Amino acid sequence: MDIKILGSAAGGGFPQWNCACRNCVGVRNGTIRAEPRTQLQLALRLPTSGWLLVNASPDLRAQILSSPALSPKELPRESPIAAIVLTSADVDSVAGLLHLREFQPLQIYATPSVRRILAEENRIFRVLNRSNPPAVWQDIKLDNWLALPDVDSSAKEAELCCRAISLGGSYPDYVSESLRKSLPPEEAVIGLTFLQGGKKMFFAPSIPSQSDLWKTAAHSSDLCFMDGTFWTDDELIHVGGSSKTAREIGHIPLGGPGGLFEKFGPAGGGRRVLIHINNTNPILDEDSLEHAEALRRGWQIARDGMEFHL
Amino acid sequence: MDIKILGSAAGGGFPQWNCACRNCVGVRNGTIRAEPRTQLQLALRLPTSGWLLVNASPDLRAQILSSPALSPKELPRESPIAAIVLTSADVDSVAGLLHLREFQPLQIYATPSVRRILAEENRIFRVLNRSNPPAVWQDIKLDNWLALPDVDSSAKEAELCCRAISLGGSYPDYVSESLRKSLPPEEAVIGLTFLQGGKKMFFAPSIPSQSDLWKTAAHSSDLCFMDGTFWTDDELIHVGGSSKTAREIGHIPLGGPGGLFEKFGPAGGGRRVLIHINNTNPILDEDSLEHAEALRRGWQIARDGMEFHL
Repeated sequence: MDIKILGSAAGGGFPQWNCACRNCVGVRNGTIRAEPRTQLQLALRLPTSGWLLVNASPDLRAQILSSPALSPKELPRESPIAAIVLTSADVDSVAGLLHLREFQPLQIYATPSVRRILAEENRIFRVLNRSNPPAVWQDIKLDNWLALPDVDSSAKEAELCCRAISLGGSYPDYVSESLRKSLPPEEAVIGLTFLQGGKKMFFAPSIPSQSDLWKTAAHSSDLCFMDGTFWTDDELIHVGGSSKTAREIGHIPLGGPGGLFEKFGPAGGGRRVLIHINNTNPILDEDSLEHAEALRRGWQIARDGMEFHL
Repeated sequence: MDIKILGSAAGGGFPQWNCACRNCVGVRNGTIRAEPRTQLQLALRLPTSGWLLVNASPDLRAQILSSPALSPKELPRESPIAAIVLTSADVDSVAGLLHLREFQPLQIYATPSVRRILAEENRIFRVLNRSNPPAVWQDIKLDNWLALPDVDSSAKEAELCCRAISLGGSYPDYVSESLRKSLPPEEAVIGLTFLQGGKKMFFAPSIPSQSDLWKTAAHSSDLCFMDGTFWTDDELIHVGGSSKTAREIGHIPLGGPGGLFEKFGPAGGGRRVLIHINNTNPILDEDSLEHAEALRRGWQIARDGMEFHL
């Protein structure tokens, strides 16, 4: 399995356009040792040809341009990007679909609930239907293996498969009350296990505190990308960005009691990578104690441009 | 009046993520003399303090980061970006609002029709209401002068004002038939005249062929930014990107009978700048005959990072 991290930051990126926290000022001015990061975006090489995007970040256009493997090779327009899988209806996950509006046939995998939110209450995403053929939406059923995208039966052994689990969490605030009531809560935020050639990768960029379902999938993977959004529960409140805690917006913090480090524990022999890192998180400062602690506990800290091969 | 061009390309940018036309391949590989360009975005300095964005491009996050004047200076989060004015509901014009979702109070000026398209059929834009106070939408009335944003009466002489005219054109394809029927066609695509200190700037990134209303505003301005999307009417068909002509999608081409160069004529003593340049337009190649012809006719060709002072 070939995986590219095109973006590693949480919503807003690093630095964030309107943020003057220590990290954002530091990375703008070069007064801390830290790398800028675009918003979370992964790409996986498909077994037959082309690439799968995991979510569609608001920074997707620049992320595609920065990765030559994703360039179209010939006329007529033919991008190697063939499919997208969505893990939620959050702006971070879906806004980049609007970058993909240029008459390109695509397959989009999402839970029926995420598909309905975009189809029924956000007509702007219909720009994807201008292509010939128009975008094809495929339903993700929780806890079922799915071949990505549908491949020839002759290619079975090289197949890339994917299984979704519910991570708990809730639908975005922008969804109407009436639609929200008709959607099963377990389809709001999913984690994805990818399987290819006997190797497993697990992807969970947001881990709400109410669920521990992710543990089995994470511990049994060869590589997992886990929610590295916040270090402390009240981080966003301190910079004046919000009145809500990390847990209230669907992210367990890394540190402290009940945080990711404690919950994950020492189990699992696979590689562990923190992704979806918020601009306020002290691990972004490579000279911070928190950065050192994450490494000491066996975690990698994702950067844009990282590549993994399983 | 201080104006920054943060982006100068049409929808998709240059190069476009999925395009392998001569220009896109050439700029990717460095085999033509051309500069990459992000999607059209202007910023105007407000007379009191802060900046006004003209439209909200899908590339807006990177465009803000590339312009130090737009960085927030202090905690709590306080961006100098205070307001946005929208000229249509096209993805090119509005997608960037999603980049501005980070709890920042904003004023957004748009025709009632554009506001209704986003409010009634695209709930995702409600992420702008998470700020405290939430985003305030202000109606643009055609052919009326409007102070941007509402300033103290004591600041009258330095006031930045704006007047919208209809450019014709149509609402985006993604708008439902039922809503479309209730919207006055003249609010679909507007051109804007900005006035400050006796100087006028006119902005018209898309000029549908059915209207000549723009001529008076363009000819009487000290600086005009005009639709430079396509050189020929069938440009998009040639690269396999669409089956529609330039005129069919709301842009008169630059060249040929009835094109912008002919229609604009030699009148007007102000500066004239081509903006919203599509990746397929030969003027992007600085060694092309078309590039030379545009310059010979007295037009400037916009590039990202250009600044103007009136």
